Amino acid sequence: MAVEESIFDQEMGKTPANHQPLTPLSFLAWAARVYPNKIAVVHGESTFTYREFATRCRLLASALKKLGISKGDTVAIMSPNAPPMLEAHYGVPMSGAILNALNFRLDGPTLAFTLQHCEAKILITDTEFSSIIKDALAHVTSDLLVIDIDDPLGAGGERLGEIDYDTFLSGGDYEFAQNINFWPTVVWPDDEWDAICLNYTSGTTGNPKGVVFHHRGAFLNAMGGLTVSALSKDSVYLWTLPMFHCNGWCYTWAVTAAGGTHVCLRQVETAQIFLSIRNHGVNVMCGAPIILNMILHAPETHKVTFDQQVTAYTGGAAPPSAVIAGMERLGFKVVHLYGLTETYGPSTFCAWQDAWDELGLEEKAQKMARQGVRYPTLFDQSIIDPETMEDVPADGKTIGELMIRSNTVMKGYLKNPTATDAAFAGGWFHTGDLGVLHSDGYIEIKDRSKDIIISGGENISSLEVEEALYKHPKIMEAAVVARPDEKWGETPCAFVTLVSDDATVDEADVIEYCRTRMASFKVPRTVVFGPLPKTSTGKIQKYVLRERAKELS
Amino acid sequence: MAVEESIFDQEMGKTPANHQPLTPLSFLAWAARVYPNKIAVVHGESTFTYREFATRCRLLASALKKLGISKGDTVAIMSPNAPPMLEAHYGVPMSGAILNALNFRLDGPTLAFTLQHCEAKILITDTEFSSIIKDALAHVTSDLLVIDIDDPLGAGGERLGEIDYDTFLSGGDYEFAQNINFWPTVVWPDDEWDAICLNYTSGTTGNPKGVVFHHRGAFLNAMGGLTVSALSKDSVYLWTLPMFHCNGWCYTWAVTAAGGTHVCLRQVETAQIFLSIRNHGVNVMCGAPIILNMILHAPETHKVTFDQQVTAYTGGAAPPSAVIAGMERLGFKVVHLYGLTETYGPSTFCAWQDAWDELGLEEKAQKMARQGVRYPTLFDQSIIDPETMEDVPADGKTIGELMIRSNTVMKGYLKNPTATDAAFAGGWFHTGDLGVLHSDGYIEIKDRSKDIIISGGENISSLEVEEALYKHPKIMEAAVVARPDEKWGETPCAFVTLVSDDATVDEADVIEYCRTRMASFKVPRTVVFGPLPKTSTGKIQKYVLRERAKELS
Repeated sequence: MAVEESIFDQEMGKTPANHQPLTPLSFLAWAARVYPNKIAVVHGESTFTYREFATRCRLLASALKKLGISKGDTVAIMSPNAPPMLEAHYGVPMSGAILNALNFRLDGPTLAFTLQHCEAKILITDTEFSSIIKDALAHVTSDLLVIDIDDPLGAGGERLGEIDYDTFLSGGDYEFAQNINFWPTVVWPDDEWDAICLNYTSGTTGNPKGVVFHHRGAFLNAMGGLTVSALSKDSVYLWTLPMFHCNGWCYTWAVTAAGGTHVCLRQVETAQIFLSIRNHGVNVMCGAPIILNMILHAPETHKVTFDQQVTAYTGGAAPPSAVIAGMERLGFKVVHLYGLTETYGPSTFCAWQDAWDELGLEEKAQKMARQGVRYPTLFDQSIIDPETMEDVPADGKTIGELMIRSNTVMKGYLKNPTATDAAFAGGWFHTGDLGVLHSDGYIEIKDRSKDIIISGGENISSLEVEEALYKHPKIMEAAVVARPDEKWGETPCAFVTLVSDDATVDEADVIEYCRTRMASFKVPRTVVFGPLPKTSTGKIQKYVLRERAKELS
Repeated sequence: MAVEESIFDQEMGKTPANHQPLTPLSFLAWAARVYPNKIAVVHGESTFTYREFATRCRLLASALKKLGISKGDTVAIMSPNAPPMLEAHYGVPMSGAILNALNFRLDGPTLAFTLQHCEAKILITDTEFSSIIKDALAHVTSDLLVIDIDDPLGAGGERLGEIDYDTFLSGGDYEFAQNINFWPTVVWPDDEWDAICLNYTSGTTGNPKGVVFHHRGAFLNAMGGLTVSALSKDSVYLWTLPMFHCNGWCYTWAVTAAGGTHVCLRQVETAQIFLSIRNHGVNVMCGAPIILNMILHAPETHKVTFDQQVTAYTGGAAPPSAVIAGMERLGFKVVHLYGLTETYGPSTFCAWQDAWDELGLEEKAQKMARQGVRYPTLFDQSIIDPETMEDVPADGKTIGELMIRSNTVMKGYLKNPTATDAAFAGGWFHTGDLGVLHSDGYIEIKDRSKDIIISGGENISSLEVEEALYKHPKIMEAAVVARPDEKWGETPCAFVTLVSDDATVDEADVIEYCRTRMASFKVPRTVVFGPLPKTSTGKIQKYVLRERAKELS
């Protein structure tokens, strides 16, 4: 016997009047309609209003369509945080294509691998990166049309393609691009589950994986970011975070959704950062911890003052108390975010609790060091024992793996169902990050699975030791890894970079400093001074340090 | 030959890790996790934290499930803006049921019609409305379990059912309700297209229509409202708008999504409004224009002062300049919204443009009188010629019908496919409202189709004449309708209510006042003084006035 259909399902199917795919492209249509004369993009002395910005994006879409680009094709871009990069986030998917924003810190062969893996048909590339792209192209065997961006604000460089970006744009259909009515003039996703872009993870070993985003997730994570950072038409966002990094943590779309202003920045350079903040009234920005360190340790001559407060969202490592306090003195409010490429960038934020207002700096920093709670658009996250798939107790001690399930988790890894299935085993996305759940519901990441040091049978969180090292006034950066040891199995080995070359600190000083701040088995037995090896996205390459630590033995 | 699947669709289907139905129920799970100790609900001297509020909602869900309520059942509630009404917005759908929030201004037979039409199994009813509900129940022939709310802050009244609300709640499974992990303990929608609630329109003729909302639309319109009104954890929302009115324009869910505070209000009474604003730090509220008028014309003794600014969202008619200015003097910022039950409440808002800061009061009011631009979550709206289905020119003159297509348009009318199909004809939701599109992209409603007056072949917008009348310092409310006329076909007839009984204004004064403010053919030929007939949702019943105007002839 058939189950009777509920009266609430009878003859109430989806129609174009009440169902449309969610897509962040709709934010540009909205901003161009609501704030056509407002400044959308600032680039040096030039500005584009939302009307102009939308027109440029649609010219790009139109020009791509004229080339035969259509649904399911891939268009790659290699660009610093300049207008074409922002335009590509709208113009490319508006042609029906999928955007691959390349990491400009990668090497030629790796770039060639990603271009071929995602079957890119077009590469838009800023001449600043011509030498690395030339190297990449030498390894690419498939057909790839190259379009050069020759930005007057750039340092210049060889042109590699047949056409430059502005000429290409001017070949678009201007009438199409001018039409205030977006819907009939752009290629809209058939389904919000359609891919909008892909981002390659910079994986420390093996080939990078292509993380595919869909329109639904990009729309929702942008809305989540807008909510968490209270973006509005009065938001002025400084592009210190590379847009290739999870599409600028979805702020490429979120700032537009609020009708705010994007301030481009080709080079992350402290004089420019401070001047942009003062001259354009910047009030929000994002960046890895190294950006905060750069700002904090900028030459005094760069540190021009400004009246507004700038909220600086940071992720990748907990902001140490010294950084929080120093940034506050300069006019910045630091907020800790957490996320992964697989979660469209930020998924978790350290929501401020009014009760924390009363705390002293160190206690505040301890609260703020935690990754925190989920975005309102994140369906669920939990610290789970990966063996039993049970939640760990909320005791702030029991370590488990952070797992997430949400509409803002990637569609999957491109052409890699094995990796996709492994990542989604048991109905949860396995982040690979180990952490604890505090009694107030805040999560705190203790380490990547492979970064835990086991010494004499005791687990040592390398993050905990690093956090202590970061508080040392003369230490700029620190990373702690396991060094093999006959007696203890492993001992902690610290690699540190000092604030300046003439700082005088030796191994004994550092060890003594740690001894007063942690259990003795956690104190580094070895301290190595010098610059730290990093991935193209600025993450410290612990596997390189692990090799070095082995060689010390 | 099969079309080759895109590489971006291969083996990247939906899994529980990356796809979950959108639902506003997730906002409560979020707020209970992020702000468990924050005040969620204020009711007189009592408060509930988010942890307590969430527990109560889940107790309600659990108690309903114990009664056998399951997916597709309907639970109705008759309540003022008190905690059980808010709890029903979460607890009822968390049991799998659909919520029908009843309009407490309706009469018994109409209520009986809606209860039977939506096949309600349970009715939760505040004793304040016992006499009207008793009348309704006398007309209901189906089985209906009645639960009484006997609110100590209420005026009291007869109990009609076998159990009272608090006892019913205490029968829920407390362990289930306490579990911090929401997902396994509540009935989640299988699909975001599932119905979450229905609201009956108060239609001026014929039986009311049951407008069905789904989880997807409720989630999105709440996010839209949150964005437009910049709700945050610091928002304190005063419930002046009845929650039965499109679920409080989705603020029942939006305030929770921001972690803000709901301040309940059983009676819309000016002394209470002002005291709530001062005592609880209210900074946002919604209401029909009559609420603004009440506040403005409140006795001076009620008008206690407060430090914060309160944003007052209003819809249903344009706020006249005198109201805007008067409210500003009292500490309120007025924002004009527009929407319909079929669009989950507000779909459109009059976004402020920085350039308007420079305008004088009258010019500002003219800008603000327009319904404006779409919510960022509204897919599209347009003023369309219903004959040709073409957009009208953006000239501020050509009248067309406002049409909308969006994920935030209703699922359909319950058991009324004919009305649903008519409303969605041509892939657009037909609002029935006539308006123009201005060159800046703002829409302005000129009238309901049937409210246009045609005099000597010229169209007269009754709204335009009313707007002029509202500016008269001694006129509190005004409505203009067509009066049949042998010579002109129709002439404008004004019905007005004066600010106070002892105001002295006569017909000649009003006509003279209008003559200096509009083309002579638009000036009312007849003016009638007295109270205006209204629907249960506070809308002026023009059809009643049209009948009266006929009788004058």
